[in-house]
Amino acid sequence: MLSSVRVFAPASASNLGPGFDVLGLALGRPGDIVDAELADAPGVEIVEVTGDGGLLTTNPAQNVAGVAAQSVLSHLVATSHGGSGAGLLDRPGVRLRVHKQMPLASGLGSSAASSVAGAMAVNELFGRPLTRRELLRHALAGERTASGSTHADNAAPSLLGGFILIRGYDPLEVLDLPVPPSLRVVVVHPHCRVETAKARALLRGHGFPIEQAVANLGNLGALIVGLYREDLELVGRSIEDRLVEPLRMSLIPGYRQVKEAARRAGALGCSISGSGPSVFAFTDSDAAAARVAAAMREAFREAAGLESDTFVGPINTTGACRIE
Amino acid sequence: MLSSVRVFAPASASNLGPGFDVLGLALGRPGDIVDAELADAPGVEIVEVTGDGGLLTTNPAQNVAGVAAQSVLSHLVATSHGGSGAGLLDRPGVRLRVHKQMPLASGLGSSAASSVAGAMAVNELFGRPLTRRELLRHALAGERTASGSTHADNAAPSLLGGFILIRGYDPLEVLDLPVPPSLRVVVVHPHCRVETAKARALLRGHGFPIEQAVANLGNLGALIVGLYREDLELVGRSIEDRLVEPLRMSLIPGYRQVKEAARRAGALGCSISGSGPSVFAFTDSDAAAARVAAAMREAFREAAGLESDTFVGPINTTGACRIE
Repeated sequence: MLSSVRVFAPASASNLGPGFDVLGLALGRPGDIVDAELADAPGVEIVEVTGDGGLLTTNPAQNVAGVAAQSVLSHLVATSHGGSGAGLLDRPGVRLRVHKQMPLASGLGSSAASSVAGAMAVNELFGRPLTRRELLRHALAGERTASGSTHADNAAPSLLGGFILIRGYDPLEVLDLPVPPSLRVVVVHPHCRVETAKARALLRGHGFPIEQAVANLGNLGALIVGLYREDLELVGRSIEDRLVEPLRMSLIPGYRQVKEAARRAGALGCSISGSGPSVFAFTDSDAAAARVAAAMREAFREAAGLESDTFVGPINTTGACRIE
Repeated sequence: MLSSVRVFAPASASNLGPGFDVLGLALGRPGDIVDAELADAPGVEIVEVTGDGGLLTTNPAQNVAGVAAQSVLSHLVATSHGGSGAGLLDRPGVRLRVHKQMPLASGLGSSAASSVAGAMAVNELFGRPLTRRELLRHALAGERTASGSTHADNAAPSLLGGFILIRGYDPLEVLDLPVPPSLRVVVVHPHCRVETAKARALLRGHGFPIEQAVANLGNLGALIVGLYREDLELVGRSIEDRLVEPLRMSLIPGYRQVKEAARRAGALGCSISGSGPSVFAFTDSDAAAARVAAAMREAFREAAGLESDTFVGPINTTGACRIE
C-alpha cells in the first residue's frame, strides 16, 4: 500500500486510416500525468487540474480522470480488493491531481489519456489488484464522459501501448498487433480545435455506399498484413480511408496540402489522427520522420496560417506506467 | 509447346464473413475442368460445354472461360509470347472444352473457376509464358462477363489457392493470408439458386450506417489476426457480417436455422458463401467438420425442404493446376 503514486498515460492516434473506431496506436509523447494519494474521506476528490487553461472541471463526476478513478475505486470496494484489504477500510478515499500535458480536442486522445491515468493511478495506489486489461473498462467509463460514446481505440493503446485493434464492443475485445521496429509515427497538431462531438455528428445518419466500406475493409486487412510482414510500404499505402476522411477533412484547415506535403517529403501514408485536427504520418526512419514533420508543419503554416506542434518517434509499446 | 492440356480450377468461398468483396478462399472440390488444344483458326473456339444442363453458351465472347482464354491469347499475340514464339504463328487458335463440375449461381465461384481454368489452360498450352499472378487479370475479364462487376475474391483464390485478401482494385492488389493447418471448411450447397446480380442489387443504393462498417472492420481485422496467430476460435468468432448478411440472408431459405445448427454442432463460425445459397462454416478438425456438415444439411432439409451437397476439407493451398 502506497500513500501516493504518479502515473503517466500517453497520447494516442485513433481512427487510424481505414480503421475508424477500431485501430489505434500509442505515442511516446505527449501524455497526461495523474497524481493520486490516499484520503480519509470516501470517494474521489480532484484537488487540482493543471495545464488545461481552466477548461476542465474538478468535479470528479464530470472530469474523465475522476470518473475513471471512481469506477476503479467502486469496483475495489465492491469486490473487497485493495491490496492487503485493510487499506480501503482505513482510508477509503483518493485525492487526485490531474496534469494535462496535451491540448484538448486535438485528435491525440487527450480524454483517453486522462481516463487511463486516473484509472491506473487508483489501481497502483491500492497495490495493483487489477490487471492492465481489467483497467480498460474503467478507463472507458471515463472516456464515455467526454465523448458520449464508447470507442476504445484511444484508451486501449494509451493503457496497453502498441498498435491495437478493437474487434468489437459487445463484449469488448482488444487485440495487440505487431509493431514493426523501424516504423516511425509523425503527429502534427495544428493550433486549432475540432470538437469530437461535432466530428462524430458528421457521420450520424450518413449512409455509406457498400463500395466505400469495401475499400476500407481491403485497406484495413492489408494494413494488418503489412504489420505482420513488417512491410512498411504496404502498411503505408493501406493508410487510406474512404469512409470518414472525405467527410472530416473539411474540418481541418489546409488538410489536403498537409497530406500532399507529407507524401512529397517521403511519408509512407498519412491521414487524420482521431477526429483531428492532428494529422499523422508513417515513415520508415527517424530521418524521414523529421523531414516529414517539418514539411507538414510548414504546410499548415502556408496553407492555413496555423502554427503546429510535432511529435515524432516509434510507437510506444509500454503504454501507461508509474513514473518517478 | 503442347498440343493439348487439361486444367482444373477449384471452387471458392468469397465475401467471407466480414470481408465482402475482399476475402475469399479456395476449396479442394468441386471445381471446373477446361481442356484446351491448339487450332489452326485464330482465336478461341468453344467446342463443347458439359455439366451445365444446357444453360451456358459456347459463344466464346459470352462464355466466361472463352473470354478469359481470349484475353490471354490476345495478350500473348500482342506481346509475341507463346513459348518458343513459333507456336502462335503456326497455330494461332485454341479450341476449348469446358466441363462444369459445379452448380451455377451456387455461391461457390462457378464462373470464377471457369474463367481461371480458361485463362490457365491457354497459358499452359503455350508453355506458361505468364505467371499465375499475371493470369489474374485475364481471369477477371472472364468473371466480369458473368457478374458485370469486378470482384476478385473468387478468381484470386481459385487461381492462387489459399486464403486471399484483396487490398484494392485500382491497382489490383492481392495478398496471401496464412492458412492455419488445422482449419477445416464446410460448404453446404442447397439445391436452389441465388442470382449474383439479384444479390448485388440488394446492396445497390443502400446506405450503411457507420456502426455496421465499424463492426465489419473490427471483425475483418480480427479474422486476419486469428489466421496469423493460428487462433481458430478468434477466426471463427470473427466470421460476423453486419453489412451484407442481414440483407442477403432472406434470399436463402432456412438460413437462420442452418446457421444455428452449425453453431450447435460445434462450428467456429458460419456465414454465406459468395452471394449464396451456399453456406460455409469453419471447424478445427475433420470430425467436427463432418458433424457440422451433417447438421447443416439436415437443417436445410427440415427448415426449407431442400436437399444439399456438402464439401468438407482443408483450404486448398494449390489453386488451379494442370491435371493428367
